Amino acid sequence: MKLYDYQLAPNPRRVRIFLAEKGITVPTVQVDLRGGEQFTPEFRSINPECTVPVLEFDDGRRIAEVIAICLYFELAHPEPALMGVNAQDRAIVADWHHRIERQAFWAVADAFRNSAPGLVGRALPGPDDYEQIPALAERGRARIARFFEMLDGRLAGRQFVASDRYTIADIMALVTVNFAARINLAVPEGCSHLRRWHETVSARPSAAA
Amino acid sequence: MKLYDYQLAPNPRRVRIFLAEKGITVPTVQVDLRGGEQFTPEFRSINPECTVPVLEFDDGRRIAEVIAICLYFELAHPEPALMGVNAQDRAIVADWHHRIERQAFWAVADAFRNSAPGLVGRALPGPDDYEQIPALAERGRARIARFFEMLDGRLAGRQFVASDRYTIADIMALVTVNFAARINLAVPEGCSHLRRWHETVSARPSAAA
Repeated sequence: MKLYDYQLAPNPRRVRIFLAEKGITVPTVQVDLRGGEQFTPEFRSINPECTVPVLEFDDGRRIAEVIAICLYFELAHPEPALMGVNAQDRAIVADWHHRIERQAFWAVADAFRNSAPGLVGRALPGPDDYEQIPALAERGRARIARFFEMLDGRLAGRQFVASDRYTIADIMALVTVNFAARINLAVPEGCSHLRRWHETVSARPSAAA
Repeated sequence: MKLYDYQLAPNPRRVRIFLAEKGITVPTVQVDLRGGEQFTPEFRSINPECTVPVLEFDDGRRIAEVIAICLYFELAHPEPALMGVNAQDRAIVADWHHRIERQAFWAVADAFRNSAPGLVGRALPGPDDYEQIPALAERGRARIARFFEMLDGRLAGRQFVASDRYTIADIMALVTVNFAARINLAVPEGCSHLRRWHETVSARPSAAA
């Protein structure tokens, strides 16, 4: 088994934090995204989508969606449970995980990739070139502001995002908040619940992953 | 338990097909999205995101992400398995399911919502108004053309998208292909594997859901 990773990218960080919480070590290969290594023939033969993370199983099969990679490790190493503990709890954790990814993580990516000078003509990851859409960057920033408010409301009186324990939904939210900070979208002062939660989850050893 | 649904919308259709394959019947409430029922105070108190589907548990808690709703029914009613049968198989099914949603289903939604005359000022579902971005509609159409090619390649010599049996990844792909057809993006004649697969899965009784 082998994990293709890039230390500076937010998407593979989701997997790294998940593994750190599980206490699992997987042989890892760094793919230098800034240097364009994802576009080499060698890496295209590993993942034609030119993205990391990629998890390669011992039989050679590979998966590249963060949610799928985390699911594999949850099933293979159930403790500590990071995706819920019974049918309803697991569904609620999946609900928050997926909602934050869809509403917020991809919105930060929209804001970043459609405005960064280094990504002109590369508004989407993957093998195809798409022009930046400035209006989409702007919309991404507006959505993140809304997301901070929503998540702050959710965290009022709660220790964690989805369940009464730390889960993959907290990982998703943490990586999203930190990704937003990289494009100068900080959690507003008034979002005291979100700020308190962010301080708590950032203090876990896994946050260094 | 109660499912909020709208018969004409593609996202709740994913849940309906999933339930039909399982042979599960859930009490259902139709929410008239075309009539704007999702914006009434009554429905906002059920789902502030103003979307369907919504699954309401008997304890009053609710989830609104399709993946989470399907996961609940998979765990509560394991047979027939629609999300894979062991750790690796389940991860591979999740990989395809999530990839098709992200790369294709949301791309069709981009193409549709950013161009439909009836959705001016409503480019995203949810409580907030966002202006249409014509360039995003165009990008969505380009991405779908790429997706058809990719999925056609995947289906060469395969009966189903992700596994050796029908899974939630086939449901995701079916709903996406049919959603694309509604905005005149038909599977090209040359995509013979995809066309053969589409004919097969469309013939299942669940496709009428």
